[in-house]
Amino acid sequence: MAGPKIAVVGAGAVGSYYGAMLAFAGRDVHFLFRRDFETVSRDGLRVRTGPEEQRLHPVQAYRDTGKIGPCDIVVIAVKATANAALPALLGPLLKEETILLTFQNGLGNEEFLAGRFGAERVMGGLCFICLNRVAPGVVENFFPGYLAVGEYGKAGRDRAERIAVMFREAGVECAVYDSLAEARWRKLVWNIPFNGLAIAAGGIDTHRILADEGLRYLAEKLMQETIALAREEGVEIEEAFIARQFELTEPMGGYKPSSLIDFLGGREVEVEAIWGEPLRRGRAAGIEVPRLEMLYSLLGALTKQAERP
Amino acid sequence: MAGPKIAVVGAGAVGSYYGAMLAFAGRDVHFLFRRDFETVSRDGLRVRTGPEEQRLHPVQAYRDTGKIGPCDIVVIAVKATANAALPALLGPLLKEETILLTFQNGLGNEEFLAGRFGAERVMGGLCFICLNRVAPGVVENFFPGYLAVGEYGKAGRDRAERIAVMFREAGVECAVYDSLAEARWRKLVWNIPFNGLAIAAGGIDTHRILADEGLRYLAEKLMQETIALAREEGVEIEEAFIARQFELTEPMGGYKPSSLIDFLGGREVEVEAIWGEPLRRGRAAGIEVPRLEMLYSLLGALTKQAERP
Repeated sequence: MAGPKIAVVGAGAVGSYYGAMLAFAGRDVHFLFRRDFETVSRDGLRVRTGPEEQRLHPVQAYRDTGKIGPCDIVVIAVKATANAALPALLGPLLKEETILLTFQNGLGNEEFLAGRFGAERVMGGLCFICLNRVAPGVVENFFPGYLAVGEYGKAGRDRAERIAVMFREAGVECAVYDSLAEARWRKLVWNIPFNGLAIAAGGIDTHRILADEGLRYLAEKLMQETIALAREEGVEIEEAFIARQFELTEPMGGYKPSSLIDFLGGREVEVEAIWGEPLRRGRAAGIEVPRLEMLYSLLGALTKQAERP
Repeated sequence: MAGPKIAVVGAGAVGSYYGAMLAFAGRDVHFLFRRDFETVSRDGLRVRTGPEEQRLHPVQAYRDTGKIGPCDIVVIAVKATANAALPALLGPLLKEETILLTFQNGLGNEEFLAGRFGAERVMGGLCFICLNRVAPGVVENFFPGYLAVGEYGKAGRDRAERIAVMFREAGVECAVYDSLAEARWRKLVWNIPFNGLAIAAGGIDTHRILADEGLRYLAEKLMQETIALAREEGVEIEEAFIARQFELTEPMGGYKPSSLIDFLGGREVEVEAIWGEPLRRGRAAGIEVPRLEMLYSLLGALTKQAERP
């Protein structure tokens, strides 16, 4: 049942996990690795879920997309901060009908790909999952969650439904969006305040944010600003969505948003995709979002501090 | 030339310095010490300016204001965060005409004293100086600067002029304000952004704030918000004052605002006096100051982090 030839570009936790799940189901998956290439070639790729470990071995692992050649589907899971490298990486993977399916965070990634390779190819996915790369070639899945995919460049659900079926056959719950833009904005309603305040308020988890009256109020105000930006792009998010975010976050306990984990680990934070791009769109539309603007400036400065030796 | 009996309550760097300067000039100064009492009683109080050191010995040092008794002038130099302790401390120092001269930062301190002891007694001073307590009983003066005093509870300059003469005779440059409120607001135009962003942007000095385009813009916006709050209290600050703050800050180089030094040293930051009280006045007047509000929330959370063991 090989079917489509699939490449995973950026095999960190997200790419490794979804790629391995597809490969376990017999799909023809080719992984581009950077730092884990040696380990994965030798020992394979391991996925841990609770006490269970599945191992993919051998892995179709590469250091160079030229060796992979043209594919039907390219899953893009590099950080948004690495987008500048994508044109060179993706070139050898393309043929006429190649789908570029980006699992990257925030806004602007689909636009970037569309600008370089044509909107028609581009699809996006949102990963509601909690993964951690615990060692080279080892990914742990702490929370099963689900994947959701949708079209960027055109209306319709057919391609997305086919992609979703492929993931479901591999044991990954997968929804299909009518509007990818709406999904991205809804995710930002959570990510902008919680990922941002977790860093800006001193490296704290969601529990501590919710327990602090001032930060909780600020999170709500940031959500309102995000909803105002979404509205300008034609995405209507109901006010009740805000209360639901707090209800959903409450039981997460001491959850550390992914940006905080990156920040604390000395890795790049996707400041532009999560805060910068929404802010720039707001500015272009003349919308006042003073708190987002301030958060963006503080995160820019804080992540610059973190990069100092 | 003893003249008035003077008490200094809160003999940290500021209280020790100004008290010692008055004592060097022969004034009758009584110091309330807490942590440095033993050292100062034994070794005296040292003031360093560049390569020079002056030593006051013996010092009229106390642990208890009851032993000092009624004074003509009480200089208050405890942190605003310690105001709750003041009523008990000041009680024994008061007689009918006692002047309470507060050198504390931010807003609300004169009001606090006026509420407890009557507005007529209250005067305020702003210390434009760079002091550091480098060891117990040793204060270093890095930048001479000046002092400025004014009335809180009434119009007129007579009392303030007499206080200023006393300081000038002790070698301390001292100006007199017609409006203490205006002076406090003007100082906040600098303190709110620079002291706040120095902490919130990761522990950085003024040079790094000015070098970061986003933070610089944010500082300007915070100044505008502060000016709007001042206006509501009848204090008109010209727009050009903002540009002047940047011009004055530029040559300071890598200056660490006092709140940052407190924060990094694990000491209490005067969050309420500098950010909280201006914000509350703005809220009471219905003025939108989203950036100050956000800064206040972040500083509240960050200083709470810092207090964790």
